[in-house]
Amino acid sequence: MTTFRITLAYDGANFVGWQRQASGESIQGLVEGALAKLEGHQVDVAGAGRTDAGVHALGQVASFSLEREIDAATIVRALNAHLPETIRVVDAAAAPSDFHARFSARGKTYRYRIWNGEAMNPFERGFAWHVAGALAVDRMNEAARLLEGEHDFAVFQAAGGATSETVRRIDASRVTTEACPPFNLRVHRGSALICYEITGDGFLRHMVRAIVGTLVDIGRGRREVSWMRHVVEARDRTDLSPTAPPHGLFLVSVSYVL
Amino acid sequence: MTTFRITLAYDGANFVGWQRQASGESIQGLVEGALAKLEGHQVDVAGAGRTDAGVHALGQVASFSLEREIDAATIVRALNAHLPETIRVVDAAAAPSDFHARFSARGKTYRYRIWNGEAMNPFERGFAWHVAGALAVDRMNEAARLLEGEHDFAVFQAAGGATSETVRRIDASRVTTEACPPFNLRVHRGSALICYEITGDGFLRHMVRAIVGTLVDIGRGRREVSWMRHVVEARDRTDLSPTAPPHGLFLVSVSYVL
Repeated sequence: MTTFRITLAYDGANFVGWQRQASGESIQGLVEGALAKLEGHQVDVAGAGRTDAGVHALGQVASFSLEREIDAATIVRALNAHLPETIRVVDAAAAPSDFHARFSARGKTYRYRIWNGEAMNPFERGFAWHVAGALAVDRMNEAARLLEGEHDFAVFQAAGGATSETVRRIDASRVTTEACPPFNLRVHRGSALICYEITGDGFLRHMVRAIVGTLVDIGRGRREVSWMRHVVEARDRTDLSPTAPPHGLFLVSVSYVL
Repeated sequence: MTTFRITLAYDGANFVGWQRQASGESIQGLVEGALAKLEGHQVDVAGAGRTDAGVHALGQVASFSLEREIDAATIVRALNAHLPETIRVVDAAAAPSDFHARFSARGKTYRYRIWNGEAMNPFERGFAWHVAGALAVDRMNEAARLLEGEHDFAVFQAAGGATSETVRRIDASRVTTEACPPFNLRVHRGSALICYEITGDGFLRHMVRAIVGTLVDIGRGRREVSWMRHVVEARDRTDLSPTAPPHGLFLVSVSYVL
């Protein structure tokens, strides 16, 4: 048996998310289907981040073990030949036998992209949230920075999220209007692409999108910067901002101690 | 009557092109439909470049005249309210009464984007041509530069193109791997985005895509750099390279002497 680690990029628009579901196409299910063709029987694939329906990935990491003798370059080619064009394996490598994409992960980086302008950029429809009114980016960044450090993020866990251990360490949480991959768009007159990036040791279900919803309300001036701290510390769900839509969110990378 | 000039961005994927056709949705037809709602009767719209089916625009320019008193900002809002999300009016301004988007144009810039790498980038599927084998960008650029100046481009005119005046002045024709808007993608391992940009006083039907097809054959090493000159001068259509697909092409901007 050889354990492999692969890196995937995908456009999440037409999938039910990373994880296999009772119905609908999942990225995990499609990767497992492609590996079953290679191996001749079911192969279990572990993903580092369970991205939700509609969420994209630039650098999702997954792991699995194969009995068949096969080299990493062949895995990339064979998987891409079987996967839909919206999912691409961009890298593969043999890994230590105890490597597990999820349990070995030390940290993850997510990026959320907002198109702020009266008219939506037609090329950003699937990859950024359109917020029309003016947003104060400096205030949003101030509020984002309040999340750096160790906090209990229970308030930002989606109703369906059943994790009881809700403390997470956030290494960086910033809002910028700088280059915002995968697309650095030429900015339309009076429009801007706003980029939120967060790196931490783990994330609760819908946590990043819930944070972005709160940041946008602060950017709009509906809430003070300090509201972010209040929401987290008081775990006050009564006035929680609407969760931002999934199509602006990208799993950028996963880090490991190797 | 006031003459207006508008700038449009659109994702050309689901349209039959700029120009009205017997069937299918055209950008011109949709803009005219939106203006008819505003004006109460048919309004003729002239476009600077007649982009083909599937071709995108970052800065298409169109002109029309309205009887109704209306300001430019209202035109932007009203048109965007009626147009599909894939077409956005990004600017509008009153223009001299003799302004005509096509006949007043002095030059146009087109950009063609190629994703060169084994695996296609899932976020570029609709916006770049996937060419898998190695391409020699320096050779492509050398060949592209041969087109600068005044040439008879008859060989690159599509069968359906009926223009008899086929001499065009090309101000710039370059191939680079630098930033290539509207998306500046993070490059996957071993992959690159190749960008062809051409500025000239006018373009024949399918001309840019025919040039790109030839450039790619030169980049692949199937042809010498000098082949580009031979094709143009000899008007030799016998061994013409396949025309590049439309989804990699963008009308970037139109210039006017104002």
